[in-house]
Amino acid sequence: MTLRQRVYAVLDSERLSPAARRLRAAEIIAILAGLTSVAAGTIDGLATGARALAAGATGVVATLFLVEYLIRLWVAPEAPHHSDVSDTRARLRWARSGEGIVDLLAVIPVIAVASGGPSSAPDSASMFVLLWVLKLAAHAPGVELIIRVVYNERRALGAVLVLFIIALLSAATLLHLAEEAGQPDEYGSIPASLWWAIVTLTTTGYGDVVPKTVFGRTVAGGVMVCGVAVLALLAGILATGFAEEVKRREFVRIWELVARVPFFAEVGAVAISDIVGRLRSRNYPSGAMILRRGTPGDAMYFIVSGEVEVRVGAQPVYLRDGAFFGEMALLDRRPRSADVVAVSACTLLILNVAEFYQIAGQQPALVQAIEAEAKRRHADNRTRSAPPVVDD
Amino acid sequence: MTLRQRVYAVLDSERLSPAARRLRAAEIIAILAGLTSVAAGTIDGLATGARALAAGATGVVATLFLVEYLIRLWVAPEAPHHSDVSDTRARLRWARSGEGIVDLLAVIPVIAVASGGPSSAPDSASMFVLLWVLKLAAHAPGVELIIRVVYNERRALGAVLVLFIIALLSAATLLHLAEEAGQPDEYGSIPASLWWAIVTLTTTGYGDVVPKTVFGRTVAGGVMVCGVAVLALLAGILATGFAEEVKRREFVRIWELVARVPFFAEVGAVAISDIVGRLRSRNYPSGAMILRRGTPGDAMYFIVSGEVEVRVGAQPVYLRDGAFFGEMALLDRRPRSADVVAVSACTLLILNVAEFYQIAGQQPALVQAIEAEAKRRHADNRTRSAPPVVDD
Amino acid sequence: MTLRQRVYAVLDSERLSPAARRLRAAEIIAILAGLTSVAAGTIDGLATGARALAAGATGVVATLFLVEYLIRLWVAPEAPHHSDVSDTRARLRWARSGEGIVDLLAVIPVIAVASGGPSSAPDSASMFVLLWVLKLAAHAPGVELIIRVVYNERRALGAVLVLFIIALLSAATLLHLAEEAGQPDEYGSIPASLWWAIVTLTTTGYGDVVPKTVFGRTVAGGVMVCGVAVLALLAGILATGFAEEVKRREFVRIWELVARVPFFAEVGAVAISDIVGRLRSRNYPSGAMILRRGTPGDAMYFIVSGEVEVRVGAQPVYLRDGAFFGEMALLDRRPRSADVVAVSACTLLILNVAEFYQIAGQQPALVQAIEAEAKRRHADNRTRSAPPVVDD
Amino acid sequence: MTLRQRVYAVLDSERLSPAARRLRAAEIIAILAGLTSVAAGTIDGLATGARALAAGATGVVATLFLVEYLIRLWVAPEAPHHSDVSDTRARLRWARSGEGIVDLLAVIPVIAVASGGPSSAPDSASMFVLLWVLKLAAHAPGVELIIRVVYNERRALGAVLVLFIIALLSAATLLHLAEEAGQPDEYGSIPASLWWAIVTLTTTGYGDVVPKTVFGRTVAGGVMVCGVAVLALLAGILATGFAEEVKRREFVRIWELVARVPFFAEVGAVAISDIVGRLRSRNYPSGAMILRRGTPGDAMYFIVSGEVEVRVGAQPVYLRDGAFFGEMALLDRRPRSADVVAVSACTLLILNVAEFYQIAGQQPALVQAIEAEAKRRHADNRTRSAPPVVDD
Repeated sequence: MTLRQRVYAVLDSERLSPAARRLRAAEIIAILAGLTSVAAGTIDGLATGARALAAGATGVVATLFLVEYLIRLWVAPEAPHHSDVSDTRARLRWARSGEGIVDLLAVIPVIAVASGGPSSAPDSASMFVLLWVLKLAAHAPGVELIIRVVYNERRALGAVLVLFIIALLSAATLLHLAEEAGQPDEYGSIPASLWWAIVTLTTTGYGDVVPKTVFGRTVAGGVMVCGVAVLALLAGILATGFAEEVKRREFVRIWELVARVPFFAEVGAVAISDIVGRLRSRNYPSGAMILRRGTPGDAMYFIVSGEVEVRVGAQPVYLRDGAFFGEMALLDRRPRSADVVAVSACTLLILNVAEFYQIAGQQPALVQAIEAEAKRRHADNRTRSAPPVVDD
Repeated sequence: MTLRQRVYAVLDSERLSPAARRLRAAEIIAILAGLTSVAAGTIDGLATGARALAAGATGVVATLFLVEYLIRLWVAPEAPHHSDVSDTRARLRWARSGEGIVDLLAVIPVIAVASGGPSSAPDSASMFVLLWVLKLAAHAPGVELIIRVVYNERRALGAVLVLFIIALLSAATLLHLAEEAGQPDEYGSIPASLWWAIVTLTTTGYGDVVPKTVFGRTVAGGVMVCGVAVLALLAGILATGFAEEVKRREFVRIWELVARVPFFAEVGAVAISDIVGRLRSRNYPSGAMILRRGTPGDAMYFIVSGEVEVRVGAQPVYLRDGAFFGEMALLDRRPRSADVVAVSACTLLILNVAEFYQIAGQQPALVQAIEAEAKRRHADNRTRSAPPVVDD
Repeated sequence: MTLRQRVYAVLDSERLSPAARRLRAAEIIAILAGLTSVAAGTIDGLATGARALAAGATGVVATLFLVEYLIRLWVAPEAPHHSDVSDTRARLRWARSGEGIVDLLAVIPVIAVASGGPSSAPDSASMFVLLWVLKLAAHAPGVELIIRVVYNERRALGAVLVLFIIALLSAATLLHLAEEAGQPDEYGSIPASLWWAIVTLTTTGYGDVVPKTVFGRTVAGGVMVCGVAVLALLAGILATGFAEEVKRREFVRIWELVARVPFFAEVGAVAISDIVGRLRSRNYPSGAMILRRGTPGDAMYFIVSGEVEVRVGAQPVYLRDGAFFGEMALLDRRPRSADVVAVSACTLLILNVAEFYQIAGQQPALVQAIEAEAKRRHADNRTRSAPPVVDD
Repeated sequence: MTLRQRVYAVLDSERLSPAARRLRAAEIIAILAGLTSVAAGTIDGLATGARALAAGATGVVATLFLVEYLIRLWVAPEAPHHSDVSDTRARLRWARSGEGIVDLLAVIPVIAVASGGPSSAPDSASMFVLLWVLKLAAHAPGVELIIRVVYNERRALGAVLVLFIIALLSAATLLHLAEEAGQPDEYGSIPASLWWAIVTLTTTGYGDVVPKTVFGRTVAGGVMVCGVAVLALLAGILATGFAEEVKRREFVRIWELVARVPFFAEVGAVAISDIVGRLRSRNYPSGAMILRRGTPGDAMYFIVSGEVEVRVGAQPVYLRDGAFFGEMALLDRRPRSADVVAVSACTLLILNVAEFYQIAGQQPALVQAIEAEAKRRHADNRTRSAPPVVDD
């Protein structure tokens, strides 16, 4: 593996390796530090020392982002969807992608810093915040999920927006008519009344502009109720959209993990598709206690990657990728009989008791396979005169 | 096709043709332009030139709406539900329908403009906003969906309204009793206290009227919590209602699209009804990249209308209405092996991997049909010595 | 049927007869009129005439409630769950029930009116509002549903309340520590700070008390975010609870309606239980257009009570309790071929197309029964040389 | 059973015995009393007597918590997950657990009280509130459920937090640029503008800082809409997460109750797993009326623990653990034929009519078993010449 390949592997935002995760965390910390230093630089009464420190920190972060931009440009040809073009074209393509443009924008401050620094022009410096905030959005996990939900529900959200605009304009017009005589400064024109309308319709309610007439107050009451209704509609639409998108993603992600567990290869494809929707994945750091002896058994576990130690009897048993454990507690509903600890960082698939029994009805073959495997391991342990039962 | 038929086809709000879509977009832009010009006309300190411009723009938009009204009246007999009556009766019926009345109201400003213009009576002019906002509601997509959800949930929403009124009246009465002595102007009577009550119950909180006594503040705290609870109840009811109505509509819409895909004609009616609930439709503009080589395969596609180009090997393959693609990635869970681009504007039905495998268990015949069709196309390609595999 | 039985039938809140519905509407109007008159009576600057009018209206409504109380007491023995006791015991039992106590409380004002009237003691008169608001809650439809949802979710809602109290106390304590020095009046003690805390935690934000220190503002920011989170939690819990309770009630209600449709009596019990969850009921007034010729066919209808006229061909066909119509559009997915109008007030069960085809897969016998019945009616019509097809 | 075992049984937070429930209620009352007394102690203008009373109450509660801490330390070895270690190690382990640390922190005030009392240092006394609030959170039911939901949804919630921070920083920066000239005190720096930003983004809207420029107000309008959207997103995410977690817990809890009902032991394991998801449990105090004769029959009941009296005919029938009742009303859809009253405190599993018929289709064996048991009891009653039918 060349250096460029190794660097790409760490920078790739889809990777789950510890190095890649640490880098993403560091990136977010750097962005937050940069944002803090720029924000601090705008405080007027700051001591000279503190101001120099803030300017320095801004400069350091900006330089880091420049270095990052150049590295990302260099490794761009390693991306799998760039494998069919030359290095130069791959880099151009990345530079023109959304990620490339955001990263380039985040570098702009470095030029401003080089040519005088933010201390000389604090106001323009504060614009950097907006560019780095963009970078934060691009690199933060989960933001993309929310964007997708909003995209999926764009019709319904658009309709709410139209209703919001209708309520806003109606409110501004009616209040303009009702309150113009008494408060010409606040409600003298429809655009002026819009400020009151949006403050009221979002139920923010600053109180800087308040209707005084009975008609104005009656309309205002209706506008507040509309504001509450708009919020409730938004919440309702997003709740529906969120539930659907999360379900869809989970399925694809789990499917890919299931494909790595050898045990499932023996079960038929249709049976697996039935199981996939019922599994949840979880990551454990090295040394984490996965199961504790004596606690109620409410799930069984499949190991996708990593190794666990089953502390049963005098001599612990080790299980690796593709093994499973915890099924005994599901089959006989008794407390856990052993501690299970992660020896290395692990990714596990969890099948909880509710789902297990629902599958049991529909896929008896799978439950039989689990029972057979448990019996086999049981016998195996005995002949090795190792601790007799491994199933937690 | 007569001119009247063609005009009707463009004006009909159910049509999906590009011309009909563009007209609807133009209509919304015209309404927004009209709203802006009327709103601008109410600003007192406006220069004479700007005022004349605003008045002119208002006039132009109003004239456009008059022309639109007359055209819609002319084409009314083309509507399918008017096919059994004379032209005059059809027009009368349309004029008396909700849409006809809203469109007529939107025309009223044109008369006001003709007889002096909004500059002479800015206040009455601002009333136009309310009429045009109504037109915006009538022509905006999705508003009808929200109205339907509110209608479906009218019992529960009515109950929340009753609880809201109960909280409002109780709050006003208790605060009137508590605060009347200290703040006779603000809480002197129950109607006066109602202003405080609604500002607080909707959690708007202007702060222009605030209780000062301990008892008043204690009640006020309870009122605020009630306000939060009312909002939460509304959100809960609308979330439930929204999820149901969206599901119901999607089913009917997809059913109509499925009926146009020849492939589904060979599958039995019950199997189709099982699939319909799992498909999603999406429109792509001409030239859009539908699939990209190397990305994970998470869905297959059925072409309802339009044509796509499958860029595989040296010679691209073209697929038209009724064909499907992308199924290979579902069957073997490998990345896409080809780019697929929309040659013309396309409507596709998308079946994602999660749903595909759920159907696989229930409708093995359908999956066999897909596999057979894939194999047939595969062989077909080979004999034509065209690129060997076309599937995505 | 004795007079007492007939009066009970109208007063019984479970009855769906037009008279019972009208009475309930009249009751709510009377309560609202009473509330308005009491509220108006508290306005200080009211003219003598208007004041006398308000007092008079209050008196009339209070008298009506007294009469209603006496009538309800008189008919109490007619209630089915009182059939096993003597008339006197039945009346005592009703008087001691929740409904009886609320109705008695609502009568109290009549005594006050008789002994001087609200004009002599406007403040105590305003207390009547609270008693009548209670009556509104007891007689308003749907309020009981919300109470049930809150009851079902009482554990989760209680937990949110505990979190709310924790946030409230922590916020008040921290702000008391932070702001006591600068604003001793507003934050001098924890109880005093509580006012600020609840105004902020509910995001009402009057602005009468605002933190000034950096630490105070930082905590305040956190409190606002907690407020938003509490609201979101409440909405989430209530959305879940609402969806469940609505589903459960609908099932029981529909079941009772299905039991009255003769057609379903021939289908087995299990098939019915499968259908019940998929039907929706709707009431139509006399003369209402149920289906319109040419519109897309998206549902079929079962008549629970009332009569409809199917306007097909020259001679209309009439259908009564137990008949169904609109099934043809489901079977062949074509537009409606006839108008259907309610001749009398009707209660219909609606089975939409999505649900119809889901049942088709699981209950082929039911679909066959529908097809057979359609064919039979078809033939029947022909032999009578009536209009050939009746199905919508 | 030793004294230590008996004490542990009462203190164990998982126990459902009346004594354990009463203790938990007493604990919460003690915490609330302590919080009230500390809060009261911070009021400056308090009379000496009232102050001494508050200080005394604080001292009493603190002493109670010290006693509780020592008792919990003493009984720690009785916990089942401590059964494998010595008494000293078990106590150390409990003292180091989350619960132990919270309980220790709650004891700190007792030392402060002993060495001078809160009257001498009211400000530090008010810190006690924060420690006791923690104890409230640890012992309140349901708080743990909310923590679990937040943990499950941490990815999505984190994404919302990132979006919130992005909106917050962008808003503060833009308003700083727009309003700095006009309001240097309020918007002079980005950190200063952050106060306005968070007050607006949470739609709290104190109104102490309000933008005046057109650009500032336009941005502010957008920020308010973002605030509403963030709230709606949170509600949507939590609604989804809550529904899932509640479903999962209910399953495990009901499973454990079903395992105690002898009747279910005869039905196969898969059938049970199918039922478990459809049952709800409810607790009734001694003397509670469970069913009332003449009311509609919408559910049947399984007795998990306790005893009920079926008041049918002259001689009541008693049913105990493992029996069921109310099934007749489900089988023939008639009103209840008997009153059923709880003789002792009962835990019942409730199967409502909707679920009953859904199971009827899938598990005919179970319905047969219920019918057979009903028939058997019926016959049994007759031979004993006891009241003929017992089924509610």
